[in-house]
Amino acid sequence: MGGIVRQSIDRAAPDIIQALGQAGVATVHEALGRTGLMASSMRPIQQDLSIAGSAVTISAPPGDNWMIHVAIEQLNEGDIMVLAPTAPCDMGYFGDLLATSAMARGCRALIIDAGVRDTRDLRAMGFAVWSTAISAQGTVKETVGSVNIPIVCAGAAVAPGDIVVADDDGVCIVPRERAATTMEAAQRRLDAEEGKRQRLQNGELGLDIYQMRERLEAKGLKYE
Amino acid sequence: MGGIVRQSIDRAAPDIIQALGQAGVATVHEALGRTGLMASSMRPIQQDLSIAGSAVTISAPPGDNWMIHVAIEQLNEGDIMVLAPTAPCDMGYFGDLLATSAMARGCRALIIDAGVRDTRDLRAMGFAVWSTAISAQGTVKETVGSVNIPIVCAGAAVAPGDIVVADDDGVCIVPRERAATTMEAAQRRLDAEEGKRQRLQNGELGLDIYQMRERLEAKGLKYE
Amino acid sequence: MGGIVRQSIDRAAPDIIQALGQAGVATVHEALGRTGLMASSMRPIQQDLSIAGSAVTISAPPGDNWMIHVAIEQLNEGDIMVLAPTAPCDMGYFGDLLATSAMARGCRALIIDAGVRDTRDLRAMGFAVWSTAISAQGTVKETVGSVNIPIVCAGAAVAPGDIVVADDDGVCIVPRERAATTMEAAQRRLDAEEGKRQRLQNGELGLDIYQMRERLEAKGLKYE
Amino acid sequence: MGGIVRQSIDRAAPDIIQALGQAGVATVHEALGRTGLMASSMRPIQQDLSIAGSAVTISAPPGDNWMIHVAIEQLNEGDIMVLAPTAPCDMGYFGDLLATSAMARGCRALIIDAGVRDTRDLRAMGFAVWSTAISAQGTVKETVGSVNIPIVCAGAAVAPGDIVVADDDGVCIVPRERAATTMEAAQRRLDAEEGKRQRLQNGELGLDIYQMRERLEAKGLKYE
Amino acid sequence: MGGIVRQSIDRAAPDIIQALGQAGVATVHEALGRTGLMASSMRPIQQDLSIAGSAVTISAPPGDNWMIHVAIEQLNEGDIMVLAPTAPCDMGYFGDLLATSAMARGCRALIIDAGVRDTRDLRAMGFAVWSTAISAQGTVKETVGSVNIPIVCAGAAVAPGDIVVADDDGVCIVPRERAATTMEAAQRRLDAEEGKRQRLQNGELGLDIYQMRERLEAKGLKYE
Amino acid sequence: MGGIVRQSIDRAAPDIIQALGQAGVATVHEALGRTGLMASSMRPIQQDLSIAGSAVTISAPPGDNWMIHVAIEQLNEGDIMVLAPTAPCDMGYFGDLLATSAMARGCRALIIDAGVRDTRDLRAMGFAVWSTAISAQGTVKETVGSVNIPIVCAGAAVAPGDIVVADDDGVCIVPRERAATTMEAAQRRLDAEEGKRQRLQNGELGLDIYQMRERLEAKGLKYE
Repeated sequence: MGGIVRQSIDRAAPDIIQALGQAGVATVHEALGRTGLMASSMRPIQQDLSIAGSAVTISAPPGDNWMIHVAIEQLNEGDIMVLAPTAPCDMGYFGDLLATSAMARGCRALIIDAGVRDTRDLRAMGFAVWSTAISAQGTVKETVGSVNIPIVCAGAAVAPGDIVVADDDGVCIVPRERAATTMEAAQRRLDAEEGKRQRLQNGELGLDIYQMRERLEAKGLKYE
Repeated sequence: MGGIVRQSIDRAAPDIIQALGQAGVATVHEALGRTGLMASSMRPIQQDLSIAGSAVTISAPPGDNWMIHVAIEQLNEGDIMVLAPTAPCDMGYFGDLLATSAMARGCRALIIDAGVRDTRDLRAMGFAVWSTAISAQGTVKETVGSVNIPIVCAGAAVAPGDIVVADDDGVCIVPRERAATTMEAAQRRLDAEEGKRQRLQNGELGLDIYQMRERLEAKGLKYE
Repeated sequence: MGGIVRQSIDRAAPDIIQALGQAGVATVHEALGRTGLMASSMRPIQQDLSIAGSAVTISAPPGDNWMIHVAIEQLNEGDIMVLAPTAPCDMGYFGDLLATSAMARGCRALIIDAGVRDTRDLRAMGFAVWSTAISAQGTVKETVGSVNIPIVCAGAAVAPGDIVVADDDGVCIVPRERAATTMEAAQRRLDAEEGKRQRLQNGELGLDIYQMRERLEAKGLKYE
Repeated sequence: MGGIVRQSIDRAAPDIIQALGQAGVATVHEALGRTGLMASSMRPIQQDLSIAGSAVTISAPPGDNWMIHVAIEQLNEGDIMVLAPTAPCDMGYFGDLLATSAMARGCRALIIDAGVRDTRDLRAMGFAVWSTAISAQGTVKETVGSVNIPIVCAGAAVAPGDIVVADDDGVCIVPRERAATTMEAAQRRLDAEEGKRQRLQNGELGLDIYQMRERLEAKGLKYE
Repeated sequence: MGGIVRQSIDRAAPDIIQALGQAGVATVHEALGRTGLMASSMRPIQQDLSIAGSAVTISAPPGDNWMIHVAIEQLNEGDIMVLAPTAPCDMGYFGDLLATSAMARGCRALIIDAGVRDTRDLRAMGFAVWSTAISAQGTVKETVGSVNIPIVCAGAAVAPGDIVVADDDGVCIVPRERAATTMEAAQRRLDAEEGKRQRLQNGELGLDIYQMRERLEAKGLKYE
Repeated sequence: MGGIVRQSIDRAAPDIIQALGQAGVATVHEALGRTGLMASSMRPIQQDLSIAGSAVTISAPPGDNWMIHVAIEQLNEGDIMVLAPTAPCDMGYFGDLLATSAMARGCRALIIDAGVRDTRDLRAMGFAVWSTAISAQGTVKETVGSVNIPIVCAGAAVAPGDIVVADDDGVCIVPRERAATTMEAAQRRLDAEEGKRQRLQNGELGLDIYQMRERLEAKGLKYE
């Protein structure tokens, strides 16, 4: 059972990727019709960082990090590696040496449904990670997997070149062909929120702004 | 099945609430006879903050945050919202817009046995949260629940007006009618600890301060 | 069923202990042939700290912290307490008063397969903790356990005097008699990594540095 | 901190208790307005059994089963013991000797937010158990708790004399004063279901029986 | 955000579906190159049953079972419903009335990454279920989802018409277009196993049958 | 890093092993001073079976079942294999072919802190398993481990030749050199229980048999 490396993938326009990163996970997830979100077990090792990039996907056997070396050769500036093991595994696939190599290729982040190690060094280097575990447990390089094939990572489907948006709330995947329309929907949402934020800050209630009182009464809500 | 909103609740005296917040969760929990503690899955999204306030309780259907809008109208300065879903749910009920509205009413914190989102913004705004999940997953506004009824949140019973004490160790609930006596017990405990802390700092052993040696021997402890 | 306290234990040389702490958990775990690692549920309450010390082991009944008082008398400068309950338990065995007493004896850290409390105070005091839970729930002093007997803590075997290495990646236990050889292997690893780090930073690929291309092809990896 | 034993509690009428047991957990939970359900971690050790009885509540320290002996003296024919530890604990509080004693008093079941042991013997004896763990780990008899006080068990509030309904789906608690009205609502539900079951068996669709087609279209559902 | 119902889907040939069910999950998963397996949290409510059928997929909002009614109209004889909620949810989406309706349409099983109820009745009716939870907690019918779109269920990608294979080991999904080749690979595997089973039963060792001794020695295995 | 296979291990006397199996896990665990118990996540795949045997231990890399083939050659009549992966792993290490081979060597059970598959076949063959997961996910044969070295399995230390006692309550390990004295203590316990069981069946209370009333009163228990 050999693996496959797709060497040529399409990516979205850099300005749209950057804008999605600034919009953040909650807004992008809403703009996508509430799809694309990874499981809440996917957590950042750093705090207060919001980022976006093109997915270079990795399907790796449990406890085997060989394919990360293969994937690094495929990285472009601004890419984010997304790794899903083919069976549940919380071993430490990735540490400071691999991060050094990935950063030399212009990659700044890893999303992994498994463990990482050297987390203190990774924070110091400015390499961002979202993972489902932290573990010093080492891996082997014995079995091949694949790079840039469609994968399922922490419950979300990811195709190579999809846009990864990640912040303190988690990770959301935007299909590449929907990047522009998603960003438009996100921007409309951000614009609408700005006006509401001002009114809420002034003490107006959501009950009035969104005209909820009549519908609540119709549903049987009683005030005592 | 309509819900209920109790508009008038009793609250404890502000100076006692503030003193309980300064005493902290571990001390208050002891002063209460080791009751009132929420499950250890209830974790803060910020660090090194200790707080107390009067509970405005929310019973909400799973995945439905409509009642938070209703609860915000019931908030007084210094209140803390406490939300329990009626079935297990880790969706993101609460984000920066709702926090803006709650802060405009004088509320500074939320305790929720479910998820929140926009966590980076919430920390930047100074709105404190203890939750059992972080998730960008959105909720609906379709079904009514209740505000200011007794609830069970993360394993602890909470009545409206009870005092919520929360810090890095978790969340403890003080029944309103026991607030003053609990604070007295907490103060006695703090006073007693201060003397012990000094002696322990000087190198005296708990074995001697608490006269444990004889009882340990009676229980069969052997030194080799 | 009385317990036992071994009062005299052997410790490794201080300079080797210190060197292991600087090497860090991931490197030491590799140098040990990938053994000795505690479960990934063992997490620090502070960030960006790397430490090592000699283990003073504690076997304690669930929900009973009496033996910590007994263990504190056995502490030497530089020791680390390692506590395993005899049944799963996430109660708060340890807080700021016990930390004050332990620090007066020269101890700077606790590893515990259970809960701790007063975590904010512990961070402020500079007392380091790795635990599997945070909980304000109090414990009793009713049943004796043992101090300085071999224990299993979070899945790792620990003998008294073994070296505890702990950082953001978790906790690893080095058997005392293997301390020197483990540190030699760790140093060789650190030296080898330094050269590789430089080459990776310059953009060389692991595929070339480690001569992986031929073996990948033999295993059936295909490039498209 | 001594405990309390309430020796006299009110119970619901036996025929209503029996009828609730026959209705089963899902129906009773609906009849109660979807409240009173314990967490889904509460699982039976036997299969295909449906039961109901009056709650004799036990609040016990973690790892201490002394209060079960005290509770057994308070049992009447048809009672069910409901035990909540005061801190999370999965030790084995209960085995075949305690079951022998409880059965001699007319008790046929235990609901426990902790562990039990001798599960094979308990099944052979016909003593029913719903628990959150199975563990041979023994407990002590050192600290008093309380019997027949209000408790929170696996997330549900239980008062002494409340009706416990338990089957393969879990455990639901019916407040004693609402037993009769709940059973009436349950019966109406059962009667209504019977007619629907017949129509569904004949191949009619819920879409038509409940007239859902128009509302689905209004909500935007499209058929392709 | 309306939903979609695809009314016409392609299915694999019945004899191949039946053969896959007889081969069982472990064999089919191997024949697929070790892909398609759902997470091990997906467990059967019955024992010793092996089954296969064509997937009718359901994407449903958390806590909302409306789409199951819609899906039932789309069922053919031999289909299996596969439901994934759009956010984690362990509520009871499905019980005996829905099972009655589905069976009237020729459906015999449900795969659901959420909860079910009436489990005793479902076993008695012969309706098979694999779920990630058992819960009596009721759901609503307020928000539309989709039927027969591609979904991710318990970590596996499922397209409508794919073959679902389920037994005591879990659930595996065979892409429809690979059904025939997968069954051929499974049959080769079953044939090869039969010869090996005979030799192993006679006491021959895998070490000799698979000629492992030389390779083990080359990897450094030492006998003492 | 090669592995080691110890070919000659000492075993306890067959009649003592058999007697420990009949005494069962809860009794043996008590007789051992409440030590040796595996974590409660270790569960049987069959019901109502109690068994004991000599441990043949296996330390295996995560996701690699090669060492089971090596271990089978080391099995004697009545042995039980005990496998601990060197990192957490829930893949399916073991199925019906390996069971066929192990049974041909006289082995009747496996204890594994990982997954198994073909569970229906294993039950039909009469091969007993206690595992922490059920999963069809396949493993590789790439990396060597060790056989008959001391391991930690599900939190319990196991040396080769130790006695494994397993039933519906879990798994307990008796150190070989303590087998006889443990069985004596277990027998005393069984004898004492028999008399108590009779008295309890007759309706006598534990409160009286164990003379608890005075001590409960001294601890402050109040009857109302």
